[in-house]
Amino acid sequence: MENFDDLVAANRILAEHGVIDAYGHVSLRSPKDPNRYYLAHSIAPERVQAEDILEYDLDSRPLDDAGRESVRERYIHGEIYKTRPDVMAVVHNHSPSVIPFSVTGVPMRALFHMAAFVGDGLPNFEIRDVQKGTDLLVKTPALGKALAFALKDKPAALMRGHGAVVVGENLARAVGRSVYLEQSARLQMQALLLSKNITYLDEAEVRASMPIQDYKRAWPLWRDKALARAKAERG
Amino acid sequence: MENFDDLVAANRILAEHGVIDAYGHVSLRSPKDPNRYYLAHSIAPERVQAEDILEYDLDSRPLDDAGRESVRERYIHGEIYKTRPDVMAVVHNHSPSVIPFSVTGVPMRALFHMAAFVGDGLPNFEIRDVQKGTDLLVKTPALGKALAFALKDKPAALMRGHGAVVVGENLARAVGRSVYLEQSARLQMQALLLSKNITYLDEAEVRASMPIQDYKRAWPLWRDKALARAKAERG
Amino acid sequence: MENFDDLVAANRILAEHGVIDAYGHVSLRSPKDPNRYYLAHSIAPERVQAEDILEYDLDSRPLDDAGRESVRERYIHGEIYKTRPDVMAVVHNHSPSVIPFSVTGVPMRALFHMAAFVGDGLPNFEIRDVQKGTDLLVKTPALGKALAFALKDKPAALMRGHGAVVVGENLARAVGRSVYLEQSARLQMQALLLSKNITYLDEAEVRASMPIQDYKRAWPLWRDKALARAKAERG
Amino acid sequence: MENFDDLVAANRILAEHGVIDAYGHVSLRSPKDPNRYYLAHSIAPERVQAEDILEYDLDSRPLDDAGRESVRERYIHGEIYKTRPDVMAVVHNHSPSVIPFSVTGVPMRALFHMAAFVGDGLPNFEIRDVQKGTDLLVKTPALGKALAFALKDKPAALMRGHGAVVVGENLARAVGRSVYLEQSARLQMQALLLSKNITYLDEAEVRASMPIQDYKRAWPLWRDKALARAKAERG
Repeated sequence: MENFDDLVAANRILAEHGVIDAYGHVSLRSPKDPNRYYLAHSIAPERVQAEDILEYDLDSRPLDDAGRESVRERYIHGEIYKTRPDVMAVVHNHSPSVIPFSVTGVPMRALFHMAAFVGDGLPNFEIRDVQKGTDLLVKTPALGKALAFALKDKPAALMRGHGAVVVGENLARAVGRSVYLEQSARLQMQALLLSKNITYLDEAEVRASMPIQDYKRAWPLWRDKALARAKAERG
Repeated sequence: MENFDDLVAANRILAEHGVIDAYGHVSLRSPKDPNRYYLAHSIAPERVQAEDILEYDLDSRPLDDAGRESVRERYIHGEIYKTRPDVMAVVHNHSPSVIPFSVTGVPMRALFHMAAFVGDGLPNFEIRDVQKGTDLLVKTPALGKALAFALKDKPAALMRGHGAVVVGENLARAVGRSVYLEQSARLQMQALLLSKNITYLDEAEVRASMPIQDYKRAWPLWRDKALARAKAERG
Repeated sequence: MENFDDLVAANRILAEHGVIDAYGHVSLRSPKDPNRYYLAHSIAPERVQAEDILEYDLDSRPLDDAGRESVRERYIHGEIYKTRPDVMAVVHNHSPSVIPFSVTGVPMRALFHMAAFVGDGLPNFEIRDVQKGTDLLVKTPALGKALAFALKDKPAALMRGHGAVVVGENLARAVGRSVYLEQSARLQMQALLLSKNITYLDEAEVRASMPIQDYKRAWPLWRDKALARAKAERG
Repeated sequence: MENFDDLVAANRILAEHGVIDAYGHVSLRSPKDPNRYYLAHSIAPERVQAEDILEYDLDSRPLDDAGRESVRERYIHGEIYKTRPDVMAVVHNHSPSVIPFSVTGVPMRALFHMAAFVGDGLPNFEIRDVQKGTDLLVKTPALGKALAFALKDKPAALMRGHGAVVVGENLARAVGRSVYLEQSARLQMQALLLSKNITYLDEAEVRASMPIQDYKRAWPLWRDKALARAKAERG
């Protein structure tokens, strides 16, 4: 079995930061085979352990689920890995401060250096443009493909009335971006209430920030605390 | 004695999520006799244990209270069970983000798929239409009947200046709806501050979501954690 | 020594609910002598133990401080006990959601049945009307008298740019009112952002609610938890 | 080795209060040599222990880093110590409620007596005026000097899209000001939503409050709790 410490930690970090609750999920592309990814079966992220993690092909079929139920929205992960070879980790969340932006015409913009990647321009996936009368869940390959198409080459996409998908070339970045996307949304809501005249990061500042922001100072702290909790729960 | 684990858990889950504080209550219709329901006596929900639960008839008379004080607003439960044979569980709460909607003319609407049931249309119970000069408490059979009448066939009703009542065909759904009703209210307040132009779930999306949203992924997590706390408190 | 469990608990309950932080204080009039009151010396409320409590006369002179520093704003307590024989307990806090009301012309109004007492009309104490250029602290007998005068026969008064004073005929009520005053302020801010058309409790509803709202269901829960923490800290 | 209890505590207090997260830092000028300061190496503040603290000269060169990575933005500290002989402690944070003020033209003003120092007038450092196209980090001596110049003789300065720097003549005051600056920003945002007609502390009130507000009641509580956590983590 792989060492799944990073992925176990990622699940728990996102829950701890209120970015996901009992729902939401995070996956990792296999470092050994780009046509495989790892994702926990359908349980609450805050209690994921290594043995809960299943391996999928890019059509999101489990290699061996041992009778455990797969996440219905796993096509989010598989279809993005297909179209984005640069992406090694995918987070799907119901980030609470992001949802109000997803249901209004107000675009998220970069105003906090920790979430400078927002300035790359985040698309908002409107599932209704693809299929009418859904329950908003991305639970078919076709909906997964449509979401991946909407995401394009961006670091994240909002999902109308639902949440967001956030990607990265490693878990630290996908998780860090998820944490700071939530905070950036909250800051932008507050700034918009204070004034219509906001100084956002400009194009040059966004370009200067994006390559260096890898959340490398936060990740070891978050990871250690998450794995300590995981270990404590085993008793 | 019945196995009251689900009802003990429900009390504690609602407190843990900030949907109820020292007040509020949750009941379960007896699975053996539709003319009976279970409800804890008048103590804070976060400390309910199995032995705190009493059995009531649908006129909200305790079968044997063993000298313990009944909740004054128990008529909420009994009168709803009378008129709604489909309902097996009732929550009454002071859900903080819901109250601002209850005192304004602003209707709650479905904008988050986890609370799609809001799109069924939630009535707002104005106690003043039934009786003037009350303390807002539903503490008589007549007020309970009026609330049940206002609820009609809906999954929840707001109660002006007071809170809400939320129902379901099982405890998981009544509790899950309560948790996500609170979150949906918060999201809607934020969305309304961002823009007057909000994309709500449409009728077809609401209809597609309601039957499947049973909070089955969250419930086992919540329940296990709640019962672990209950057990720990016993020492 | 008196049994100070209630007063120890009151200190800790207020801290636990975010109504006071390292500052703020709560006193109890002596049940044996109406010309005496009990108040902890100048330490953070969340760590108060019985041995931290001092006895004062109504001029706020400690009977025996054993070298411990008295709270500078103790005149709030003494001067209110002088003018309000009905009052047995006084809380002074920096209740965060109340402060925005204290610095604007917007009156707090009753919109939540748990804080119906707000409908009695809460004065806002403007220290500048009494003395210019203060640090806003009520640290002289004259300022204490002025605050007591502003309070009149009301259950609470806001203090501009500073916080509030809340009174009751027992500790449970002074503490319960403090907890729900904070919540009511938050609800009213949210309601005002939703709509200018708010249904407040009417006069008859306020009158019906005030005498019965004694927070008797919450108090034992809060008290037990607070005293358990106090005991645990003793080791 | 110095006794670094105060500085260890300061790191943890700021994290506990949500003023800093995995990022942000706090330094102390050496009490023995005004040309030296102490600052933890690049780790998350909430886990700082005494052995993580390095000594720097005022050009922000570590005397002996023993191979540990220094904080990139340490020039904030060194350059302020150069120009402000009165300053013995410097906090750099991403205080979440302060950031919305930093990106709008809305000035922070004193409306809460616990943060009366805001009334001294807080500059907003616009890094773009000094250098275009940065990642907003103050990671060169030149940017540190520019920030120190913007700060002038004030107790704090906002940093556009980034956070704030807060100073004091001792750690208790720099930390206390950071905690209450965050709270004051939140209160001011709320007050501005309630009304455009706000009573701020006037000049005389600010002058009366600033010299006496040393957070001496909070500091021992905060410090004891922080050091207890630090000790517990050592096991």
